Amino acid sequence: MAESSGRRRRSGGRAGAATRRGAAIIEQMPWQIPVNIDRPTEPLPPEGVQAIHEGAMRILEDIGVVFLNPEALAIFKQAGCRVEGDLVRMDRDFVMEMVGKAPSTFTITPRNTDRTLPIGGNHLLFGNVSSPPSYWDLELGKKVSGTRAQCQDLLKLTQYFNCIHFAGGYPVEPVDIHASVRHLDVLYDKLTITDKVMHAYSLGKERVEDVMEMVKIAGGLSEEEFQAKPRMYTNINSTSPLKHDYPMIDGCLRLARRGQAIVVTPFTLAGAMAPVTMAGAVAQSIAEALCAIALFQYVAPGTPCVIGTFTSNVDMKSGAPAFGTPEYMRSTQMTGQMARFYGLPMRSSGVCAANVPDGQAMWETSNSLWAAVQSGTHMVYHAAGWLEGGLIASPEKFIMDCEVLQHIQRYMQPAIFATTADDIAFDAIKEVGNDGHFFGTQHTQDRYADAFYQPFLSDWRNYEAWEGAGGEWTAQRAHKLFKQITADFEEPPMEDAIRGALQDFVARRKEEGGAPTDF
Amino acid sequence: MAESSGRRRRSGGRAGAATRRGAAIIEQMPWQIPVNIDRPTEPLPPEGVQAIHEGAMRILEDIGVVFLNPEALAIFKQAGCRVEGDLVRMDRDFVMEMVGKAPSTFTITPRNTDRTLPIGGNHLLFGNVSSPPSYWDLELGKKVSGTRAQCQDLLKLTQYFNCIHFAGGYPVEPVDIHASVRHLDVLYDKLTITDKVMHAYSLGKERVEDVMEMVKIAGGLSEEEFQAKPRMYTNINSTSPLKHDYPMIDGCLRLARRGQAIVVTPFTLAGAMAPVTMAGAVAQSIAEALCAIALFQYVAPGTPCVIGTFTSNVDMKSGAPAFGTPEYMRSTQMTGQMARFYGLPMRSSGVCAANVPDGQAMWETSNSLWAAVQSGTHMVYHAAGWLEGGLIASPEKFIMDCEVLQHIQRYMQPAIFATTADDIAFDAIKEVGNDGHFFGTQHTQDRYADAFYQPFLSDWRNYEAWEGAGGEWTAQRAHKLFKQITADFEEPPMEDAIRGALQDFVARRKEEGGAPTDF
Repeated sequence: MAESSGRRRRSGGRAGAATRRGAAIIEQMPWQIPVNIDRPTEPLPPEGVQAIHEGAMRILEDIGVVFLNPEALAIFKQAGCRVEGDLVRMDRDFVMEMVGKAPSTFTITPRNTDRTLPIGGNHLLFGNVSSPPSYWDLELGKKVSGTRAQCQDLLKLTQYFNCIHFAGGYPVEPVDIHASVRHLDVLYDKLTITDKVMHAYSLGKERVEDVMEMVKIAGGLSEEEFQAKPRMYTNINSTSPLKHDYPMIDGCLRLARRGQAIVVTPFTLAGAMAPVTMAGAVAQSIAEALCAIALFQYVAPGTPCVIGTFTSNVDMKSGAPAFGTPEYMRSTQMTGQMARFYGLPMRSSGVCAANVPDGQAMWETSNSLWAAVQSGTHMVYHAAGWLEGGLIASPEKFIMDCEVLQHIQRYMQPAIFATTADDIAFDAIKEVGNDGHFFGTQHTQDRYADAFYQPFLSDWRNYEAWEGAGGEWTAQRAHKLFKQITADFEEPPMEDAIRGALQDFVARRKEEGGAPTDF
Repeated sequence: MAESSGRRRRSGGRAGAATRRGAAIIEQMPWQIPVNIDRPTEPLPPEGVQAIHEGAMRILEDIGVVFLNPEALAIFKQAGCRVEGDLVRMDRDFVMEMVGKAPSTFTITPRNTDRTLPIGGNHLLFGNVSSPPSYWDLELGKKVSGTRAQCQDLLKLTQYFNCIHFAGGYPVEPVDIHASVRHLDVLYDKLTITDKVMHAYSLGKERVEDVMEMVKIAGGLSEEEFQAKPRMYTNINSTSPLKHDYPMIDGCLRLARRGQAIVVTPFTLAGAMAPVTMAGAVAQSIAEALCAIALFQYVAPGTPCVIGTFTSNVDMKSGAPAFGTPEYMRSTQMTGQMARFYGLPMRSSGVCAANVPDGQAMWETSNSLWAAVQSGTHMVYHAAGWLEGGLIASPEKFIMDCEVLQHIQRYMQPAIFATTADDIAFDAIKEVGNDGHFFGTQHTQDRYADAFYQPFLSDWRNYEAWEGAGGEWTAQRAHKLFKQITADFEEPPMEDAIRGALQDFVARRKEEGGAPTDF
């Protein structure tokens, strides 16, 4: 490892000023907002898009969606939808009119305004793994329940890596903190360890309101400033098939009324809670998402909304969920076509079923990340750190995934395939002629420093050099980086007054008992 | 492992009749010719294609390419090209006229005519790893020089896996066989262990002629039948920059004159033997390929030719070659655009720089395989089994790669994104409504068996079940499959008379001393 880390320990380099702290451990790409310049992969012909749209509209018109939220039912009734008990049916004209009010692009501004994210357009943004109840790392060598310390470590990686643009839910659920106050401690950690775009779980009024309050405090914002533009977001899932629960809709309504952003991500596993056919699962997913987005647009027209997809399939023999499969890739691409049809930004995910950060983990994750690219996804959830179908967070996997995310960022830089005369390099080719090599040419000397992608984790040495340095497999190298990065981590700057106000808020809310845990 | 292999040991299933033998070990996809239905990813605008074309033409017109083959020089002179010493310059009109004679599609017919391959069009074909001098497997745990036994094992995998369409060069170089007779023993092994499309190294007259003779014997073909259509192929590399050596051109001329297929694959590592700019490296690669193809078309108009790419880059700090990088992906896509511009079928590769079958190996390989898909590649060399930049062949990597190749095959099946009324599944969605699940519906029951991709190596069990069965990482699982597949392997049928004739040929040629080893 001595040689290996020596190779990585170049200080400075291309790491951006925003992350100068700790940047010496690896030479990573600077903070940037990737622009997806590729034409999306579109498996559906226009009539296929129409067929899925028609299916989604018929689901909403004829079958309906259950909303276990009385406020939502009242709003739908007021809007003229057909409400019977908790079942809501709505006409396509209403749905399309409401969805049309959602912006196709918007921004989310975190406490560090340099980290402001444009959502939509051709922007491609990555977030950390969110919500696994368990944790695995190579040192432990086993799956354990998440802790606050592990959650903090994963938040440090979230902040450290420039290719991670937003903080999702808890990167691991810290079950060593009582559920009534967990959101307070973790939000404090998130807001102090990172300065990136922030998320709130929609798990009851108190949690949502607390998070909004803490985001306000961290940003030094008045209520007016907070409401003026999105400063944070929530992500909700439907309870497929065709149901939205109480707290998720409640949280979204609270955010929508204060101008914050909402991601609606049905979790439709084909063969289980959705049809065994991928187009059917996508149509159901679209229906579940659109009816919620319609609700939010009716309540607060122009609310920034993102349509999410989590359509995969189960193994029909075992019932186990499958991720990063061909079916997953195609359904993500199909959803991309539908999102463009509705003019909504889109979320998908980096996913795998593998239990450890091995070969399977990386082919499944690569499949899902490239599907995100091909689908025109704007927000990629779980882009780093996910294992076991989302039940495990792993720091090694986080770091391995970041190498792939950097690949994608670099892949999107048009310089790679520029074809100016300088790029065609006729003169250099003539100079070298039919013998020799290009190392020493002026053309090479002028360009070599930035010519190619520089990995921080891939080991390109030959076998003998690699073996001589310890012969470490990828996950082992990632583990060492994890220990170095977290050991050297320095928090982003925060004014003492703001830090104190956050601490006071947390203390006060803990005294008040935090949030109810009967959800 | 007991549970794990039990899960895989379903007999029969979808494995095709052609590979019924040994099929019980895993349930793999049947032999099929994948059709690439995706629109290629095209980073270059039309003017970019023109710029690279112009660059390639100027290289051929103004700089020229060295041919260290007197016969080629004489032919070029006869064709009116400017030949000075061993340097050949040729006008673009000549190049384009000759390249225009190459067919855009053709077939290669091996001894088992059920394995006939269509090259070109939208067909996407995979070949095994070719030519590593060394071998690594998990049991050895180290890199060793290749042996005939290891080569035979890898040929068994080549035959066993339906997703491998053609046999490339030796899957590992068996250095325990003297170089003078190595081609005889390995070709005997290749022709008896596999019945797939066969390759000859262009490494001197004797080797090429011997392989052609053995392919004839194995197919029971007269010389007339052999020459009537491609029965095999060779693959050559240029000696970049801008040079073709003696034996490779010699071998190609021998094949071209007997109607066999030729793949021309310049090996242009940007920053080393090609410009540091990817467009420059591609332009040089195109020039190196086209001049050879022009030669073969002049000699034998209509010779089936494939334009190959091996454009990647070196690490500018260490000089180590990099594979599966963003630069590699984009140059492969660019070459795809150029291949379509010239109307030639294309070859690219499955590659990585990793030394062991770990996470890095799979993200680099996934990148390169998906780039093959995105570029519209027709022949994917090294699609299974390659490590350490092609210096190591690994059976575990071979089997891991086959899982990814099956993903790609499945991904290309339009059934996944069909949108008929059956696929949209409105009635099933209505039946399930807002509660329950889809497992038990008739719609699911009618479709579940073939609804989703079934892996043979990915483990989709949850952590506890996986751990309880031994907690094996992907490479370990692949190793066990390797041992099972090779232990149970049965050769494809071959008539005794043909086998005897092959043995006689090998014996006779060995008595004659085989081939010279002074190349």
